[in-house]
Amino acid sequence: MATTIKDIAQLAGVSTATVSKVLNRKDAFIGEETRERIRALARELNYTPNSIARSLVTRRSRVLGIIVPDILNPYFTELVRACDDTARLRGYTTILCNSDGIATSEEAHLAFLAGHGVDGIVLAASDVVPNEGLLRELGIPFVSMDREVATLDCLAATVDTDCRSGAMQSAAYLISRGHKRIAFLSGAAESANTRMRLEGFEAAHRQAGLAVDPALVRCGEFQHSFGRRATLELLDGTSFTAICCMSDMLAIGATVALRERGFRVPADCAVMGFDNVYLAPLLDCALSTVDRRIFESGRIAIEALIGFLEDPDPQRTAILLETTVVARETA
Amino acid sequence: MATTIKDIAQLAGVSTATVSKVLNRKDAFIGEETRERIRALARELNYTPNSIARSLVTRRSRVLGIIVPDILNPYFTELVRACDDTARLRGYTTILCNSDGIATSEEAHLAFLAGHGVDGIVLAASDVVPNEGLLRELGIPFVSMDREVATLDCLAATVDTDCRSGAMQSAAYLISRGHKRIAFLSGAAESANTRMRLEGFEAAHRQAGLAVDPALVRCGEFQHSFGRRATLELLDGTSFTAICCMSDMLAIGATVALRERGFRVPADCAVMGFDNVYLAPLLDCALSTVDRRIFESGRIAIEALIGFLEDPDPQRTAILLETTVVARETA
Repeated sequence: MATTIKDIAQLAGVSTATVSKVLNRKDAFIGEETRERIRALARELNYTPNSIARSLVTRRSRVLGIIVPDILNPYFTELVRACDDTARLRGYTTILCNSDGIATSEEAHLAFLAGHGVDGIVLAASDVVPNEGLLRELGIPFVSMDREVATLDCLAATVDTDCRSGAMQSAAYLISRGHKRIAFLSGAAESANTRMRLEGFEAAHRQAGLAVDPALVRCGEFQHSFGRRATLELLDGTSFTAICCMSDMLAIGATVALRERGFRVPADCAVMGFDNVYLAPLLDCALSTVDRRIFESGRIAIEALIGFLEDPDPQRTAILLETTVVARETA
Repeated sequence: MATTIKDIAQLAGVSTATVSKVLNRKDAFIGEETRERIRALARELNYTPNSIARSLVTRRSRVLGIIVPDILNPYFTELVRACDDTARLRGYTTILCNSDGIATSEEAHLAFLAGHGVDGIVLAASDVVPNEGLLRELGIPFVSMDREVATLDCLAATVDTDCRSGAMQSAAYLISRGHKRIAFLSGAAESANTRMRLEGFEAAHRQAGLAVDPALVRCGEFQHSFGRRATLELLDGTSFTAICCMSDMLAIGATVALRERGFRVPADCAVMGFDNVYLAPLLDCALSTVDRRIFESGRIAIEALIGFLEDPDPQRTAILLETTVVARETA
């Protein structure tokens, strides 16, 4: 038979409410000696809380949902691992959902997570604009990462990377290396994630007295398959000496296309990535990229969410992460 | 106010038990007309089941645990995505745990998943031998993937890759390309995953009338960092013309080391991977490897687990997946 709170209360000579308070660390007003006695008994009796029963009592599941477009993108793999590690250290667990960047799929996941009684949700970077009405209706605290989002009451925090500045740094670096005709590859043209980066890319050109050739700008998806396809199209149509990619996966796709056509990287064409995924330094030609501190951003998102959940008077936070250029071999 | 089963029962003029049966698809003995009426009401009233309340009634959480060593290894990223996609299609959700291949960490995750009332668990490939006593005590149905495991009553299925044959194919392919001194990189020496692969590697040599030089065998971890380190050590000590790696991450690490020392792949040294992760064809020098059908193995594991859970008379299954050599550029 598993040990229950009742067993511990009987042996400790206190009420079940007292045991519950101590084991849930809501014991500020309980004497030190009582606290220690209860904790020692819990250890001795090998007490493990039954989370389903507990969630009915506290109305807390200690489960967080994480919605990412696709965990197969190494950026999200790393982010999810950071979120999960951080949550677990704080006694929470996570449920992962892949939306594939499809709005209706994200909405289905939100409804699903709500049905499973999660305490909070991390909406990771995506071109999808979250459904404001649905978020308001569910009322579950959430953190938005690199997304356009309404400031609802349940918005716990925004954790954004300064992508405008990151794209500007990347382009300025290429310009400083003598490049004048630089191609630009990014996600969906109409998304905020692409818009801000294109602004930064253009700003770096303006500062150097250069103009961006619209024929060199290709927007589609952040995935490697689009990076390859767009680069092949560019190679068919025009000339350029560098590609400024807005994700490392785009850069990997671009490199594959250049290799297919017999171009050497960086001798014939330089390639810059964006994200600095753990794979970037492992590639045959180590990827030069923009570091966006993926692991740290995941940790910060979870800390902000749990802080909001556990604070009796929660305040929304807004975090902006700075980027830095990491020069390796491809540029 | 959220719609409850009671609301639907009142409007449909039936008992709550009938509504519950229909909405849980246990409605074989309920008339078609009643079924349709209840489902239409559920749709109209936007009914979403409360999973916590439901799990107390059915004693089913419809949540599965997945324990992997490290989701940052692309093999596990792909496996987890396959498991999650398959589970979701069947109306289940998954909780992911990273054990880092540490036995005590895996045991803590098992206890945690049990505390959260998961219905079943997938124990993905690892050199760790699962704690038999703990698994027996928890009694939760589980699937073992590429692991040494006791045939407990709660063992739902084993899903293994024929790694002995895979390693043999890889070595035989290298031998057929004229290589005679082939290095072997794998995980922990004492683990079944390494033992079986080394057997296959040796068998291919025997068939070709060659002997394996023990100085060329390096066992440690399946990660890229070990692949790099072991290759640098090998380059310092002896000569060889090919490296037969027992994971793609080892092959990536080996390639990095060869490049650092100025060796060209495959001209100076051929490299074979193992797994065929989605990244393998994207590398600058596309990785030749052994395909182990990662996505399919994840799908099969979840299907076997859910089949076991939902079958009133569950039978254990044993699945052995065949491998094939994929020749690309590195060998």
